[in-house]
Amino acid sequence: MPEFRQDPVTQNWVIIATERAKRPSDYVSTEDKGRETKATVKDTCPFCPGNEKQTPPEVFALRSPDTKADSPGWQVRVVPNKFAALLPEENGEEQKTELYRCLPGKGVHEVIIEIPEHEASFPDYPPQQVIKVLQAWRQRYLQHSQKGLKYIQIFKNQGQIAGASLEHPHSQLLATPFIPPAVSQELKRVQEYLEKEESCLFCDLLEEEMQKGARVVAFNKKFLAFCPYASRFPFETWIFPRQHQSHFGEIEDENLEDLAAIMQDVLGRLQRALQAPPFNLILRSAPVNGETQEINGYHWHFQLLPRLTIVAGFEYGTGIYINPTPPELAAQFLTQANKEDENDGET
Amino acid sequence: MPEFRQDPVTQNWVIIATERAKRPSDYVSTEDKGRETKATVKDTCPFCPGNEKQTPPEVFALRSPDTKADSPGWQVRVVPNKFAALLPEENGEEQKTELYRCLPGKGVHEVIIEIPEHEASFPDYPPQQVIKVLQAWRQRYLQHSQKGLKYIQIFKNQGQIAGASLEHPHSQLLATPFIPPAVSQELKRVQEYLEKEESCLFCDLLEEEMQKGARVVAFNKKFLAFCPYASRFPFETWIFPRQHQSHFGEIEDENLEDLAAIMQDVLGRLQRALQAPPFNLILRSAPVNGETQEINGYHWHFQLLPRLTIVAGFEYGTGIYINPTPPELAAQFLTQANKEDENDGET
Repeated sequence: MPEFRQDPVTQNWVIIATERAKRPSDYVSTEDKGRETKATVKDTCPFCPGNEKQTPPEVFALRSPDTKADSPGWQVRVVPNKFAALLPEENGEEQKTELYRCLPGKGVHEVIIEIPEHEASFPDYPPQQVIKVLQAWRQRYLQHSQKGLKYIQIFKNQGQIAGASLEHPHSQLLATPFIPPAVSQELKRVQEYLEKEESCLFCDLLEEEMQKGARVVAFNKKFLAFCPYASRFPFETWIFPRQHQSHFGEIEDENLEDLAAIMQDVLGRLQRALQAPPFNLILRSAPVNGETQEINGYHWHFQLLPRLTIVAGFEYGTGIYINPTPPELAAQFLTQANKEDENDGET
Repeated sequence: MPEFRQDPVTQNWVIIATERAKRPSDYVSTEDKGRETKATVKDTCPFCPGNEKQTPPEVFALRSPDTKADSPGWQVRVVPNKFAALLPEENGEEQKTELYRCLPGKGVHEVIIEIPEHEASFPDYPPQQVIKVLQAWRQRYLQHSQKGLKYIQIFKNQGQIAGASLEHPHSQLLATPFIPPAVSQELKRVQEYLEKEESCLFCDLLEEEMQKGARVVAFNKKFLAFCPYASRFPFETWIFPRQHQSHFGEIEDENLEDLAAIMQDVLGRLQRALQAPPFNLILRSAPVNGETQEINGYHWHFQLLPRLTIVAGFEYGTGIYINPTPPELAAQFLTQANKEDENDGET
């Protein structure tokens, strides 16, 4: 039974994930295990077509009309995580003492298998495939918005250093029964700004960045990508809808193409410029089933966090990140690198 | 010129560390560079005796009385970080616009070279050597308490995955001109608890953990080590002085031996039980030059964070850590593993 526990000092939450339970001995020689997995992965990959029985039954798929669930023929396939950090059926009670507080680990943990090809890379997917991934994310987002959960976290870990334990391209969705602290902190600030300035903090940021230009990586009619002013990671890039929208789940069909295009563009620049570094891609969106006010004030976006530096003692001690590459330089490099590549192609 | 930048949304701070500046091309092929460094490190290690000229001049050392600064003969040696994230002489002004805030990167960044032997491991140092390391930490802590800085972060990164770029045993000190957000958050909570309960939150935690016992890893007359209730990392362990004390810098000579002993005990258990995993060890202590009230309420301690899991998209998205090993199991394993080792030795 997974559980949420609250730290009595920081009041932050952790998930004690018993379904993923690791006995202490499981940590020993992980390096050797890593090598073994790598060598045999393609034969036994649970996400490859033909191996559908190795995952829990699919909960959603985009597949050819004449194919059956849990068999080949899908383009995108969503399954519950076999080692779920949270479980839908947890129905225990809150436990609370003077110092310690614990909630049942109720929630959802799904895997979105993005493409049948084991070795595909997101920036090189056919554009229509990226749109299908976005459709699947949106469908699952809307699905879990109706269930009394409070927050839906969609994310993609790419590369072993960034936490991807399986190589086959996939992303994940975790839905929690309360608003996570990192999101609460932002909501509070956005609300304060709205009350004071009578405008959306994020909308104002976008306007400032577009005007200034120094941190812009790419933009199209509907979306803007820029390296944030206080980037925690080198080449950190945020992707925003240019028009205010609270929920990712609200994205219109006609905007999917522009979103797919800018995501592929930004990830492609990163891949070419920095030899496909590991990264985390995280969605930020309004809480679901929350107060109307806190929902309307939020402006959904993606944060792309390349993992080129190591988060270490100073960061864990202070909460302050050390970033050796100014975002202005990162943006310049990402925009130029691509141009040079294009020039190379022409000559 | 390094600078602090504040994120307009989270209001968290980052350091844009221009002295450590990495051009984008520096990130490419880091794996190859890593291998090269590893092969040649012992000949050229800037922290080995005889290579003292490769570091900035020492600012403190414990050394044999007949030896000269910046020459061999030291037991512990402290030097400014050659690639400092913060610099003492930064004297610029705060820059502030509607959205963005920036402070000069003023502060201190030092390296504590813990032992002359390149391949020594903390749990296997002679006990007197650990005491010398603690004395050096205390001396630097007190030294920088007098300079108008606000917080002193001492930490040790062990292993490449945990951020150690040099193999030779060392720790670091960074001092900042303001109280970091992770510390502010704790101070606020500790203060609230003090007002409500009229006792120190940490003292109450220690009492509860000693009484309960299930998460205790080790204790002696003066110190207690336990796996915290809401451990973010598997085998996370906190080490506290059992008697209330705000500043690490206040530690009495007669308590150094017990602190050295419990630190070696805990790190030794971790080394034996989990094959010397990478870790971050971080000091938490009261702010320096702060309000008397916020200083007195705090209770310094060390946090040991083994890096056996990977912090990934979900953690960065939500602030919630997923930990697959309950702290009760971790504590049990750390206490028992050692006993078994001792038994092995006897039979």
